[in-house]
Amino acid sequence: MNEKRDIYLDNSATTRCFLEVAALMNEIFLEDYGNPSSMHHRGVTAERRVAEAKKTLAGILKVRDKNLYFTSCGTESDNLAIIGGALAAQRRGKHLITTVIEHPAVLEAMKHLEAMGFEITRLGVDSDGLVSPEAVAAAVRPDTILVSVMHTNNEIGAVQPIAEIGAAIKAANPATLFHVDAVQGFGKALILPKRMYIDLLAASGHKIHGPKGMGFLYVADGVRLEPILFGGGQQDGLRSGTLNVPGIAGMALAAKMLCSNLDADRENLFAMKNRLIERLGEIPDVCFNGRTDETAAPHILSVRVRGVRAEVLLHALEDKGIYVSAGSACASNRPHLSATLSAIGTPSSEMDNSIRISLSVMNTMEEMDAAADAVAEIVPFLRKFVRR
Amino acid sequence: MNEKRDIYLDNSATTRCFLEVAALMNEIFLEDYGNPSSMHHRGVTAERRVAEAKKTLAGILKVRDKNLYFTSCGTESDNLAIIGGALAAQRRGKHLITTVIEHPAVLEAMKHLEAMGFEITRLGVDSDGLVSPEAVAAAVRPDTILVSVMHTNNEIGAVQPIAEIGAAIKAANPATLFHVDAVQGFGKALILPKRMYIDLLAASGHKIHGPKGMGFLYVADGVRLEPILFGGGQQDGLRSGTLNVPGIAGMALAAKMLCSNLDADRENLFAMKNRLIERLGEIPDVCFNGRTDETAAPHILSVRVRGVRAEVLLHALEDKGIYVSAGSACASNRPHLSATLSAIGTPSSEMDNSIRISLSVMNTMEEMDAAADAVAEIVPFLRKFVRR
Repeated sequence: MNEKRDIYLDNSATTRCFLEVAALMNEIFLEDYGNPSSMHHRGVTAERRVAEAKKTLAGILKVRDKNLYFTSCGTESDNLAIIGGALAAQRRGKHLITTVIEHPAVLEAMKHLEAMGFEITRLGVDSDGLVSPEAVAAAVRPDTILVSVMHTNNEIGAVQPIAEIGAAIKAANPATLFHVDAVQGFGKALILPKRMYIDLLAASGHKIHGPKGMGFLYVADGVRLEPILFGGGQQDGLRSGTLNVPGIAGMALAAKMLCSNLDADRENLFAMKNRLIERLGEIPDVCFNGRTDETAAPHILSVRVRGVRAEVLLHALEDKGIYVSAGSACASNRPHLSATLSAIGTPSSEMDNSIRISLSVMNTMEEMDAAADAVAEIVPFLRKFVRR
Repeated sequence: MNEKRDIYLDNSATTRCFLEVAALMNEIFLEDYGNPSSMHHRGVTAERRVAEAKKTLAGILKVRDKNLYFTSCGTESDNLAIIGGALAAQRRGKHLITTVIEHPAVLEAMKHLEAMGFEITRLGVDSDGLVSPEAVAAAVRPDTILVSVMHTNNEIGAVQPIAEIGAAIKAANPATLFHVDAVQGFGKALILPKRMYIDLLAASGHKIHGPKGMGFLYVADGVRLEPILFGGGQQDGLRSGTLNVPGIAGMALAAKMLCSNLDADRENLFAMKNRLIERLGEIPDVCFNGRTDETAAPHILSVRVRGVRAEVLLHALEDKGIYVSAGSACASNRPHLSATLSAIGTPSSEMDNSIRISLSVMNTMEEMDAAADAVAEIVPFLRKFVRR
């Protein structure tokens, strides 16, 4: 297989590092390798790298440096926000709200809280995968301590009306915290926590051409969290453990590279996605899960191919060096039915017919055409010869 | 300041990455960047990197691949072992044992359990910083579910009689789990969990010339842990979150490079340390905390300079491009009194007189002489002119 000609369309599972990011991390691994907790010059240099990264991310989100904490991944950020937020607020109430289409990092954290005696309300979505701000508002109670809604759904690319949901929450109960899992949205959409009533925002490095093993959590002023890891008291005691300086600097650089070019990148991504929609839409019995207009994410397309099992199509495309995903592939690789596809009302007979194509700024229009050609060639063949 | 001539003697705070490790990670960041959870070729390639890393580490520890789990740092490994182990075993009892000289990742995890209703026994140490196997055995009760003892102390380099402690625990109560924080010991000493009655072993990447933001935990067959992070169910559900493939591969390569040359490296480290002991011992009113023979760690020397504040000496050495630590510097950079120095009976008037010099295989004998020269030059000056 010629690696050079591979077409990687699984960017919502993970992305290739930007060359500049890899180069920066390499430099820090070898030169600025100090521990920010050390009192000498090498520690100070490392601490400065962390401070610069914070400043970069804070500038993107238009928040203050001190509102940012570094974690080891999106999962840890979500866990810290939800579990840490619930434990710190439990004297005010034990009710939390989320949706049925969240990432397992949110859903499983909620389950963990449920087992500890918290009460969880899980809201449904409409056929486009959208959460209604009114439904959120109606679910908020005096004892609701936290609401968690993802920015961009990882399976079908539905983008939630975050600002409206945030406003609805605060109108219903100003003390209720609003957590947003922005792992798929950060770097792909303009997200401004303060304008969107967001108290907690989770993001990840490896979804934005940054390093794996890195995440961050925005924590608004005045929001109290209990730590979920205990040790040396780094990061104001909220997240112990030696700071991953190369990872932090790499994630911040990746974010800067994406966010400084956001409008042009979105336009480019939408153009590529629209080409796919146009070309794949010509294939009989192919449809798309969720919206296909520009209210959806620019980089995620969920394609339902009736009569073809997603896994079979995935492997047939793989044979041509084209990499897509069946389901979200964010989680472990055990096949499972998608909660998101089920929630938007996918007929049970078509539950395993969807592949996810996820783009990045590294893709090209030529790749879209090649991928569409491949799907158009493979699908009739599979429909004819492969039993479902 | 000429970076090229810096002498970095703070290797127990963190280390410089091996060139080979940085190069391998760079390659994975840019080429094998897939998500191990993806079902296609790129996922499989990434998964293979993880499998190879596991095999390497398992070979070093002489355990099975499936006994290894990857975490984001030593702190997380310690937390998962202690909190996860206690929560899984709490029906058998709620008593845990540790020592007063552990790293905060252990001590704070224990405090967290204490607040949840667990009972903690904290054992003292002798004047060399050593834990007595008999004292451990005497503290083990029928309801003791876990004992945590560090392999190598991060402040004074005391190496605990781990195998003897393990045997004593199992003789007293075979159901009691033995957790060893080997963050400072792994890569510096031969550690074989099965021969040492170790059920859980925590280590970190950045202390062994590997990446920051990486750790691993060995979990013996049959040991049950509750997860402390919740999400996609990666790593048998024990540690959710996308696997940090470059970090995992980098940590394994660093471990391989150190452990395949362990005897020669130890000899080299001891030679350098002994040179320091000889040279610094000639300075009036200088002594060493803990043992100075080869039962101690080969890479850590705690030097007590009466009449000189550690922080002042640290900064005076820094001016000469020599980087050491005051206290452990593993934790946050707020000055605090050392629990280890206090536990070994350091007079309170001398509690802030100790610097830690910590070596690595990247140091040279010339650096030892230069550092000793610098200390010998600085100390009389500080004693004369700087008030304590």
